[in-house]
Amino acid sequence: MIIYDLTMPIKTDMPVFKNRDINRPILAVDRSHEVNHICEHRLTLNLHTGTHLDAPLHVLPDGATIDTFPLDRSSIDCQVFDLTAAGRAITAESLQHLDFRTGAAVLFKTINSGVDQFDGQFCYVTADGAAYLAMHGLFLVGIDSLGIERDQPGHPSHKALFAAGTWILEGLRLAAVPPGDYILHLLPLLIDGAEASPVRAVLTTR
Amino acid sequence: MIIYDLTMPIKTDMPVFKNRDINRPILAVDRSHEVNHICEHRLTLNLHTGTHLDAPLHVLPDGATIDTFPLDRSSIDCQVFDLTAAGRAITAESLQHLDFRTGAAVLFKTINSGVDQFDGQFCYVTADGAAYLAMHGLFLVGIDSLGIERDQPGHPSHKALFAAGTWILEGLRLAAVPPGDYILHLLPLLIDGAEASPVRAVLTTR
Repeated sequence: MIIYDLTMPIKTDMPVFKNRDINRPILAVDRSHEVNHICEHRLTLNLHTGTHLDAPLHVLPDGATIDTFPLDRSSIDCQVFDLTAAGRAITAESLQHLDFRTGAAVLFKTINSGVDQFDGQFCYVTADGAAYLAMHGLFLVGIDSLGIERDQPGHPSHKALFAAGTWILEGLRLAAVPPGDYILHLLPLLIDGAEASPVRAVLTTR
Repeated sequence: MIIYDLTMPIKTDMPVFKNRDINRPILAVDRSHEVNHICEHRLTLNLHTGTHLDAPLHVLPDGATIDTFPLDRSSIDCQVFDLTAAGRAITAESLQHLDFRTGAAVLFKTINSGVDQFDGQFCYVTADGAAYLAMHGLFLVGIDSLGIERDQPGHPSHKALFAAGTWILEGLRLAAVPPGDYILHLLPLLIDGAEASPVRAVLTTR
């Protein structure tokens, strides 16, 4: 069995959305070996930092929260597709040659996987691409950018997927992962009433 | 298959160590539906809040960090033992009738599972109890208190377990879990160089 860790390390100089310092995580010292003979840190991060799972509340005022993620799907059938050829936008047309399995997690490896820093023109899923995905009964859609959409007023891609009951996984590291069939493993934190959680995302071969 | 979620929900009024307000997590609003038409929160928490995994760096200045947790052990053979009879301290004597499996994760259900609030006199593992556990080649030891030891200068229980290569899982919720054999599932966050991580801890029946 091969294990792929799809997770971005959480650290101050990690790529963050729009390179804004306000989006950088902070790991502050609460206690140190030097002073207290024990080490404790305090982490501050926006829940959409690095590799994270979005819940419907992120874009829908009455949407489901992250604590409703079904634990019986924490290890799930997963398809990884190479969509490098889609360029900077995954449209319905980009997707029509793909054979999705109902109920699966689907991860898109795009041009983003070739870039280590935040790219304002990152590849995303367009509104019509998301509407196409929403017809396939997917459990989850994931992408190797910090957001599944960009510059779309009203967030139609998020909304189309959430309306279909599909979870959204962002900030994946897929550069080392060959396209194919896997098991995806995810255990979001149990943050009461929150709209997202940072996660450790892991693939194993079947 | 039965699934048990062993995780304490992360929220402001959760039980925290010594009931200190400084130990309470903060979920602050970065963006709201009312103002920004999107919801984003920023979480601030000490890494030892709620259900969390300790790495050796917590008590050993040169100890291994949380990002070295082996992902090939993220789903692992697990034994849950009822040590309610041990009272407020798990000693070597409390443990001698137990049959540990080498390489397993071992979780202790104690009097702490009967209490919903922080109890300053919580049941812990004594230095000699930890030394006994350290002889059994365990992958992990977990307990239903926020700390595996209390009021022991120099943290000998943590140190004995870490010296044996045993990870420490604290803040478990075991009240609903019958003693027996399970699979434990854990995926700590990839926090660069940190001494711990909050986790979602899950048991499944075999």
